[in-house]
Amino acid sequence: MKTNKTKVKRTPKRGHYDAEIIYSILDKDFICQIGFVYDDYPVVIPTIYGRKGNTLYFHGASVSRLLVTMETVPVSINVTQTEGIVLARSAFHHSLNYHSVTVFGQASLVTDMDERMEALKVISDQIIPLRWDEVRLPNAKEMKATKVLKLEISEASAKIRTGPPKDEKEDYELDIWAGVLPIEKRFGKAIADPELKMDLPIPDSVKNLVNK
Amino acid sequence: MKTNKTKVKRTPKRGHYDAEIIYSILDKDFICQIGFVYDDYPVVIPTIYGRKGNTLYFHGASVSRLLVTMETVPVSINVTQTEGIVLARSAFHHSLNYHSVTVFGQASLVTDMDERMEALKVISDQIIPLRWDEVRLPNAKEMKATKVLKLEISEASAKIRTGPPKDEKEDYELDIWAGVLPIEKRFGKAIADPELKMDLPIPDSVKNLVNK
Repeated sequence: MKTNKTKVKRTPKRGHYDAEIIYSILDKDFICQIGFVYDDYPVVIPTIYGRKGNTLYFHGASVSRLLVTMETVPVSINVTQTEGIVLARSAFHHSLNYHSVTVFGQASLVTDMDERMEALKVISDQIIPLRWDEVRLPNAKEMKATKVLKLEISEASAKIRTGPPKDEKEDYELDIWAGVLPIEKRFGKAIADPELKMDLPIPDSVKNLVNK
Repeated sequence: MKTNKTKVKRTPKRGHYDAEIIYSILDKDFICQIGFVYDDYPVVIPTIYGRKGNTLYFHGASVSRLLVTMETVPVSINVTQTEGIVLARSAFHHSLNYHSVTVFGQASLVTDMDERMEALKVISDQIIPLRWDEVRLPNAKEMKATKVLKLEISEASAKIRTGPPKDEKEDYELDIWAGVLPIEKRFGKAIADPELKMDLPIPDSVKNLVNK
């Protein structure tokens, strides 16, 4: 997946082009930032995705500017997870620990009805597995109001930084604390809809995700 | 700050143009995604920022492609915080709770030495306040290796979703749990650099951030 566009230019030792590494970063998330050119101007919009095999699926309102534009122009997609603040002895060597993936490509409209429904399940599973089997599935009117796009992951790269700070040799003598402050993401306690009329239990999808 | 570019097109009731709302979202974060056009192609790169007043500061290696390009072309910047998964009774009405800001503009190089140093402190404070006073500050060689850019926040918009799911009227009768699963970010236990030769205590900057 290493091409001229995806080659990591700065600190190339942080660059990775292996599909399994790229997939594993994509699978830990469901929000990406999509960049495209609109009226000669760059636009960056956050959106939800789902991955199945080498395909990324996107969905939204049929009239969404992002999706209408994405059908016609190439995009750049970035997914970034920030895992820690890296505190060095010098201001200069402060850094972040992160996993990041960038994908370049051209999305296309999914028109086949079965694939459209399958794509919506892939996106749902990306956010909260099992939920698809608990809910009322999309009806014909809702499917008509929804646009589904797909993008093959052909040009992609990952950039990763992990581990402790790296300081200048002479700075290791300084009486300055150095290390990593981890940033953790977790789920809070589920909040029932105030309109929940019956005393329904927390569903398996939520329990499964919270205990993962 | 509402212009033709920043006007929230989808679900306009989620759009906000008030500077205080935009600042408050920017101040809860330090990572943004910057989009720009490079060789006619959209590129999205995650980077760190700091806000002071109506100015966003960016920094990086002097040779960084992002920063070198940012001096010459307009950019789109997005900051998104995902705060909850919104579980509706229907698949269609599932959503996310989030705060998101998009800024459009053209960055410029900061050349004044005092402002460059001040900008680096602003960025440091954005990530971890107090740290700047604990570390070895940048020397002349490090300042030379660092490029600083600034961007005035003139065109910007925020998009916010909060609260419980909104379902179709007839779906409220279904025996399906609905509500919000909050996504929380927190700091873990600080990990000392294995090379920390003295038994230095956790510094105030880390204690302050963890206890905030």
